[in-house]
Amino acid sequence: MTTSREPEAEEPLGSFSLDDVRREGLMPTPGAETVAHDGVGRVQLAFTVEDSAGAPPAQRSVRVPPGVTVFDSASWNGIAIDSTCGGHGTCHKCRVRISSVVEEGAQRPSRNPPISRHDVKTFTREQLDDGWRLACLVQATRDLAVDVPPLTTRPKAATVGVGRQVILRPAVQKRYVELDEATLADQRTDLQRLLDAIDDLEPTPDLHVLRRLPSVLRAADHKVTAVVVDEALIDVEPGDTTQQRYAIAFDLGTTTVVATLLDVALGTPVAVASMLNKQQPYGGDVITRISATMMDPETLPRLQQAAADSLAELAAQVCREGDVDPLQVYEVAVAGNATMTALALGIDPEPLGVAPFVMSTAQPPTVLAADLGLDLHPRARAVFFPALGAYVGGDIVAGMLATGMDRDKRTRLFIDVGTNCEIVVSDGDRILSTAAPAGPAFEGGAIRCGMRAADGAIEVVKLDPQVELGVIGDAEPRGLCGSGLVDAVAELVRVGLLDASGRFVPDEQAPAVAPALADRLTRIGEERVFVLHRPHPEAAPDECVVLSQRDVRELQFAKAAISTGWTLLLEELGLEHRDVQQVLMAGSFGSYISAASAVRIGLVPKLPVLRIVSAGNVAGEGAKMALLSVRERAGAATLLEEVTYVELSDRAEFNDRFVDQLGF
Amino acid sequence: MTTSREPEAEEPLGSFSLDDVRREGLMPTPGAETVAHDGVGRVQLAFTVEDSAGAPPAQRSVRVPPGVTVFDSASWNGIAIDSTCGGHGTCHKCRVRISSVVEEGAQRPSRNPPISRHDVKTFTREQLDDGWRLACLVQATRDLAVDVPPLTTRPKAATVGVGRQVILRPAVQKRYVELDEATLADQRTDLQRLLDAIDDLEPTPDLHVLRRLPSVLRAADHKVTAVVVDEALIDVEPGDTTQQRYAIAFDLGTTTVVATLLDVALGTPVAVASMLNKQQPYGGDVITRISATMMDPETLPRLQQAAADSLAELAAQVCREGDVDPLQVYEVAVAGNATMTALALGIDPEPLGVAPFVMSTAQPPTVLAADLGLDLHPRARAVFFPALGAYVGGDIVAGMLATGMDRDKRTRLFIDVGTNCEIVVSDGDRILSTAAPAGPAFEGGAIRCGMRAADGAIEVVKLDPQVELGVIGDAEPRGLCGSGLVDAVAELVRVGLLDASGRFVPDEQAPAVAPALADRLTRIGEERVFVLHRPHPEAAPDECVVLSQRDVRELQFAKAAISTGWTLLLEELGLEHRDVQQVLMAGSFGSYISAASAVRIGLVPKLPVLRIVSAGNVAGEGAKMALLSVRERAGAATLLEEVTYVELSDRAEFNDRFVDQLGF
Repeated sequence: MTTSREPEAEEPLGSFSLDDVRREGLMPTPGAETVAHDGVGRVQLAFTVEDSAGAPPAQRSVRVPPGVTVFDSASWNGIAIDSTCGGHGTCHKCRVRISSVVEEGAQRPSRNPPISRHDVKTFTREQLDDGWRLACLVQATRDLAVDVPPLTTRPKAATVGVGRQVILRPAVQKRYVELDEATLADQRTDLQRLLDAIDDLEPTPDLHVLRRLPSVLRAADHKVTAVVVDEALIDVEPGDTTQQRYAIAFDLGTTTVVATLLDVALGTPVAVASMLNKQQPYGGDVITRISATMMDPETLPRLQQAAADSLAELAAQVCREGDVDPLQVYEVAVAGNATMTALALGIDPEPLGVAPFVMSTAQPPTVLAADLGLDLHPRARAVFFPALGAYVGGDIVAGMLATGMDRDKRTRLFIDVGTNCEIVVSDGDRILSTAAPAGPAFEGGAIRCGMRAADGAIEVVKLDPQVELGVIGDAEPRGLCGSGLVDAVAELVRVGLLDASGRFVPDEQAPAVAPALADRLTRIGEERVFVLHRPHPEAAPDECVVLSQRDVRELQFAKAAISTGWTLLLEELGLEHRDVQQVLMAGSFGSYISAASAVRIGLVPKLPVLRIVSAGNVAGEGAKMALLSVRERAGAATLLEEVTYVELSDRAEFNDRFVDQLGF
Repeated sequence: MTTSREPEAEEPLGSFSLDDVRREGLMPTPGAETVAHDGVGRVQLAFTVEDSAGAPPAQRSVRVPPGVTVFDSASWNGIAIDSTCGGHGTCHKCRVRISSVVEEGAQRPSRNPPISRHDVKTFTREQLDDGWRLACLVQATRDLAVDVPPLTTRPKAATVGVGRQVILRPAVQKRYVELDEATLADQRTDLQRLLDAIDDLEPTPDLHVLRRLPSVLRAADHKVTAVVVDEALIDVEPGDTTQQRYAIAFDLGTTTVVATLLDVALGTPVAVASMLNKQQPYGGDVITRISATMMDPETLPRLQQAAADSLAELAAQVCREGDVDPLQVYEVAVAGNATMTALALGIDPEPLGVAPFVMSTAQPPTVLAADLGLDLHPRARAVFFPALGAYVGGDIVAGMLATGMDRDKRTRLFIDVGTNCEIVVSDGDRILSTAAPAGPAFEGGAIRCGMRAADGAIEVVKLDPQVELGVIGDAEPRGLCGSGLVDAVAELVRVGLLDASGRFVPDEQAPAVAPALADRLTRIGEERVFVLHRPHPEAAPDECVVLSQRDVRELQFAKAAISTGWTLLLEELGLEHRDVQQVLMAGSFGSYISAASAVRIGLVPKLPVLRIVSAGNVAGEGAKMALLSVRERAGAATLLEEVTYVELSDRAEFNDRFVDQLGF
């Protein structure tokens, strides 16, 4: 079987449900049925979105790990579905029509998803037969087609993050006022007249507004809309523009940058776009880019410009796709790691790259979006997430916000897998965080046939008993990306071709251990390799996509660094592995690693796979939450005080534990 | 007699003492002797300023109305003299050596100024004989030469404004710190480390600082100086730069712009410069300039640029003259009327020019000095004074601050004479303000031989019994400036050639009334004129500098507008003319009008001339106070609440009173 996924540079990450949250007691959803799944592979959801203005329906396909709800899959990919309850099955608004997609050549008939008791209350018998369901209660465990009706509600709340609902109170506010004209008996200033008419806000005007105010007021017959962002009056627009309020959430990743255009009046996403960070030519990871700035003083401005270009190109794209005037985008939120944040702001990153790893500041000031090179409203604001440390940055704080790390009373482990792996553990009371240097293995670096998650990358490997590969873009396999690497090693351990120390079993033992696979175990030069894909029957091993002994070692080192990290944090809190009620796998790489494989190789604690949750692009979700709710934004600042950063690199026990963790 | 004064575009205005303040009880200066003077003419002070660094002494000459103290004359012209008591005769620090200047050809010997009892306590007999005196106790009533010793003290207070002393607490603060380097056990951010070391301030960093902070800290071995302006951390400089702290006070007048460079660490002026406002080509008064913006949308940016160029040129000049690095100027304060302020900030001024005369805002926001086109520290701040109304602007609020209008319990009348004349009356409890449209007469406009106070302008006129003229620049008289116009009319009224209604007496009566002057009363065409200066004996009347009947009418209208203004304000407070204990004549024109003449023509209430005080460039003084003391700056904001703006243009009684006030 060959499955496909869009290359990540062109498609934002999918998003994933929180059935564990519900099952384990904190957010019970009485009508929800949890469907068992094995935590491997991908499912595809084909959305047909009807337009409220009568335009032809839009088609969107997304691929997500199994177990995600249809609602979350849609929402996190920028597809708006009515909802006011936060996906908890109570508002009965997220109505969609679902049908299974019949696999080509398969003989099974199309069948509808299970019916929950909320569905029974919501739909007629006929509708249920026709496939109507509440999207938040349907888990995608196989490929589905989903019809989404046009939006009908103007919700007071939006569902974002990992199963979180936020009450809409964006920093971007508008107030339409009709003012009395001045007279000799009432010579109040234009500003005072405007502010007197707005009773619930007391903003301070930007100079920009004072310059325009006299002429706009008079030209618009004193009927104007005040545009307020946080504490600042940033514009006065003629007439009533209260319904045009937009903001852009950026996940500024080292590898990938994702932008989501939000209608903050409605709380709904309008468009999503992603691209490779234009800083890539300066190095694949943060250390390489920091080093580049240390070699040549011209590099920092160039990296800053590359960040600006990445953000600006995406902003232009989402505005174009969403048919939104960039002048009506009044705020952006940026979630990035400490280095990406420093580079975007033009802050010298050198001390982030050398011990003792010190940031310029934990909380970057709010700046103008124009200062980031964005061509939006000229006084649009850009807010950044605060960072806990040089290697637990604003992206992780955004992720903690999106996953409610400080609001959930369960013991949870949050892992953002990447070259630098961030780890957070909460026992429901104390929260600890640290960073583990995992190296580039998950991004395909230092791996013989490693590649990024682009067309031709093997992302899923099953040995069942023959080799089955999932390949991105439905193409001829060209290499192995992070999730494929983890799958390959986990499967080889499972079938016994890799022993607990990570060595391939001797050639002579292989046929007994795995008769259908033994002939794939061969050598390139002196090194033993396992052939995953052979382009043609006569291909020599070095023409094949292989997993080498050295690749296994690389992955062992990476996973040992990570598991040493969470082991030490759990110990610090006096916890055992089994105490962990939920593991959140986050980030561009972490979200795609199969839960079953992660458990098998020891990347996460040995727990039932249903406790391992792919959390998706949590940094981007956090950025959206910050734009939709000032209360949530304040929560991000509070996290700085609630979370203790633990520096592991100076711990005496680190190396001992690291060696303990090397095996499978 | 011909006296001279520097043209105002090249020389800042002189400054003037407050003997009246002392005499009338609020600020008693026990040792001060008030020297009687007649309130007319000018005196010249020639300062020789010794340099503390050993450079050759600097020579500076200033011309001021009689009665000013030597200390104030120096201080307001940017010449620093030691003082810590505010010029009240108590600190005994303002020691100078004074000698009279013998008039050329005069037979009188040089004589020293009177000796006060404070002088006796301060100096030896020999020093007193040698001319040593305390500068704050010597009134200049004749031309003096003054030797100023180098500064020896670092005062905690500075004397500015009209006899006001402010405790030095500038918004610009510096803190030198030596920080511990970061370790793995102490990974505080660079910013936190810096802020932790500064215990008395909690500034918010500009992005500019965060960009530089990592490299500056490390390059400077963690020994740095934090530069704080108000609530903002605007820079971090290597090493200890705490002694280099500068700011520039701007008086942004419609006609003249004055800049004073201040050492805010010492509270002393470093250099002063002035120039004609580069907006002059767009019109001499605010209405003409506002009209220009209404005709052509390109004019507002041009006027903004002209303001920027004026400020920038002066800033560069004072930095050059004071040998101060512009990068060490961290703040500027701008006092200007509402139109000048709007134009400098690029705010559409149109509603200021048409009824009901509405401002965009009463309090412009703090901006970057760079936004005003100034090339100082890139993050230097620019603060503006708030305005009470479209025609009682920030310059007047600054003047009220400088003259302590809200702190003095006496009944005082403040008049800033100009095309728009601002009037403030305080009974020691309530404060009222208004604006009177005086027209261009005081600026030489609509006057037959009118001209601005430039070389060749007659500024003093005495008919005693022959015509005696004081001419600016010691040149051939070319015309008549505002103070000369007032003098000429007042003297003609005094000698009887003008009657109480403002008409020249019939030709046949003139020889009886003023035999020595009657032949100067003649005609140009039908109009009667009085010849002030005849370039050669055969000159025809239209070749002469004359005062015409129509000129007298213009002045009558101007003074009637003004006196109607203060009459209505006094009535509003239930006060009589005689209740006024002090009249402050302020502004470029008002400060130069002779007190005696002002009383005679009724421009001010009929009071003893010693109650009429030339207050000098009070707007500039207020700007200096705002830079030297955040407490005073807050006081300016408080004034907005304490002062009631009275709109006269819609008052029914205005026209009746106006007619009453037309006569002399």
